[in-house]
Amino acid sequence: MPVNYATPAPEALFPVAGVRLGTAEAEIRKKNRRDLTLVELAPGSHAAGVFTQNRCCAAPVTVCREHLAAGSDIRALVINTGIANAATGEQGMAAARATCEAVAAQIGCAADEVLVFSTGVILEHLPVDRLIAGLPAAKADLNADHWHAAAHAIMTTDTVAKAASRRIELGGITVTITGISKGAGMIRPNMATMLGFVATDAGIAPELLPALARDAADQSFNCITIDGDTSTNDSFVVFATGASGLAVDAASPHWPALRAAVISVAQELAQAIVRDGEGATKFITVEVGAGGTAAECRKVAYAIGHSPLVKTAFFASDPNLGRILAAIGYAGIDDLDAAGVKVWLGSATEEVLVSENGGRAASYREEDGSRIMKNAEITVRVDLGRGSAEATVWTCDFSYDYVKINADYRS
Amino acid sequence: MPVNYATPAPEALFPVAGVRLGTAEAEIRKKNRRDLTLVELAPGSHAAGVFTQNRCCAAPVTVCREHLAAGSDIRALVINTGIANAATGEQGMAAARATCEAVAAQIGCAADEVLVFSTGVILEHLPVDRLIAGLPAAKADLNADHWHAAAHAIMTTDTVAKAASRRIELGGITVTITGISKGAGMIRPNMATMLGFVATDAGIAPELLPALARDAADQSFNCITIDGDTSTNDSFVVFATGASGLAVDAASPHWPALRAAVISVAQELAQAIVRDGEGATKFITVEVGAGGTAAECRKVAYAIGHSPLVKTAFFASDPNLGRILAAIGYAGIDDLDAAGVKVWLGSATEEVLVSENGGRAASYREEDGSRIMKNAEITVRVDLGRGSAEATVWTCDFSYDYVKINADYRS
Repeated sequence: MPVNYATPAPEALFPVAGVRLGTAEAEIRKKNRRDLTLVELAPGSHAAGVFTQNRCCAAPVTVCREHLAAGSDIRALVINTGIANAATGEQGMAAARATCEAVAAQIGCAADEVLVFSTGVILEHLPVDRLIAGLPAAKADLNADHWHAAAHAIMTTDTVAKAASRRIELGGITVTITGISKGAGMIRPNMATMLGFVATDAGIAPELLPALARDAADQSFNCITIDGDTSTNDSFVVFATGASGLAVDAASPHWPALRAAVISVAQELAQAIVRDGEGATKFITVEVGAGGTAAECRKVAYAIGHSPLVKTAFFASDPNLGRILAAIGYAGIDDLDAAGVKVWLGSATEEVLVSENGGRAASYREEDGSRIMKNAEITVRVDLGRGSAEATVWTCDFSYDYVKINADYRS
Repeated sequence: MPVNYATPAPEALFPVAGVRLGTAEAEIRKKNRRDLTLVELAPGSHAAGVFTQNRCCAAPVTVCREHLAAGSDIRALVINTGIANAATGEQGMAAARATCEAVAAQIGCAADEVLVFSTGVILEHLPVDRLIAGLPAAKADLNADHWHAAAHAIMTTDTVAKAASRRIELGGITVTITGISKGAGMIRPNMATMLGFVATDAGIAPELLPALARDAADQSFNCITIDGDTSTNDSFVVFATGASGLAVDAASPHWPALRAAVISVAQELAQAIVRDGEGATKFITVEVGAGGTAAECRKVAYAIGHSPLVKTAFFASDPNLGRILAAIGYAGIDDLDAAGVKVWLGSATEEVLVSENGGRAASYREEDGSRIMKNAEITVRVDLGRGSAEATVWTCDFSYDYVKINADYRS
């Protein structure tokens, strides 16, 4: 059960002018589920993406990087679930390229105008023939209103589909931003996540898109962790069709609002992944401030967010908060003065100081910690006492069900 | 249930001349258990230790570092379980110093000739009055044959006591090396572990001891991980009484054999901690070779050893081996060529090549992986194809019981 999250209704996912989506059953890994998604973009659409830093990255990630580097329009995305096409060698590269060529033939574009994404089991080969055989059905299903279906078709161990949508008025033109994401395990994105897609019908100058994709990822998918495992397939892509009639460049007065809306959709999608984290029962925000650098704040936030001991204490609603101090201590700041660190625990309605001066705060009472730990949404706030940098990480707790899901996955 | 490990019988733990041990019930955290251990060393004994790199290190760790730096003989060790005396500020430091003074008064030595160790819950104050009140009973219990009882008295979530012992003949003199350790969670020692003690009645030149402690830790406790959480209290101490009558310095022909025996005892104790890892059902050896540096081999070995996805797959006996490749890929070697990596999976009786050339090995069959994964002792061997450095890490799997133990601990 996700933590305070439900998939938006189909009508809450606004169509993006210039984008049509279709899904089909291709039997990539299992029968009787829609596991193939085709996204068609209007001519003149541009895209930018950020991808996993995992050195064993998947074949589709390599192909996406090549196609985005070519700088041409992007006319289609194709996404399969079931098999990740990662650690599949030359055969995997050939499968990803063949997929792009088959999509190009369907859509009527060049192969390097297609982006390809896979998610699922690593080290197994993609049944590329079945994937290609499913493309005509996906094409026949293309519809601007199929965001909801596409969000479902890209799921793996997700228990709910993730999507977010905004409409904003810019210079008298209504601009839409809609996105979908998936992921529940192997989540500690490093530069991107597996998988996130945000579309807008604003026209965004192509030179702005790479930085927008990176900034949006850095403020959303790059701030979440479920189990600390960086996937081989993480991909986050922003695409802009221009079909709304609004064109925006860096000098446009609409650029800040459009940029903020894209980032906001990305954050909602990223948080949805954590809320649906494998076995999650709580949503934890870790805010680290007063650090010397943002990098050291992130180190501390991730050390807390990754610690199995901290995460199991949250699961148990046990204010065994010394585990948080231990994680801060081993986060890798060599000259950290433990006596300067403060830690607070908070819920939506209160915050209590847990630790200061190298020990338990004099005002802290166990019953305060116990009360806050019972909430489904908890914030850990850390003051490093070293500067003014800050970082936030969103994570979830660690329950029996995480083990169950990952011991059973694939079976 | 530990993986292929049982506490040695009391008679298998050879007394070390010059060392007497006593335990007592001090009600540090719970009644009706021996939670206080006193170790008395003969005059002229020397010790060296390595301690946690956690910046929120416990008060007793700070005091041990000071006392070892003073360079005097070490005449006693005092160890309590139940409360870690970590994140306890000035009050914690005062408690650790008061403990040393009380022990010094009992033994008849200086306070800086006492080393103090605590293990248990962080962020709670040590009941130092009850600890000191327990010292006379521990002193009355002092006996050269009490290694077995001491191994039990230092346990926390351990399910079995850990101890190892060797007798070797050097130059016609029988030298004994006996050690004990504890730890089952919050185990990813960084320079040392919580807690390991190895004693010998050989006389070791004091200038050799620090390097011996460090080398032994690097080849034992620094090669294990259970959950990736580096404790606030990790301590590993080697002490030498000289009471056997054999004195060894760097030029001695006996030094290599003595050193090897000390390291061997440390390895047995470190592996015992992994075999008794919280919830462990399997003992996993991760050997990484052909690396550019030992440091990068360790990065890869720890990435595999820490991955919750890899560890739950071992628990499930599921050869979902792509998770190992994903961990290699995100281990942090920026210029790693995935196509040059090879991975084998092995048991005591066989080894199969799983992956090469960036994908699944042509010869690999799922049934081979399934058969090997059913073993209680499994080796993952990785060839990075970059050089000649290597590193080994020992770890365990990740089961429901890890979550249960850590959600319940403290309650």
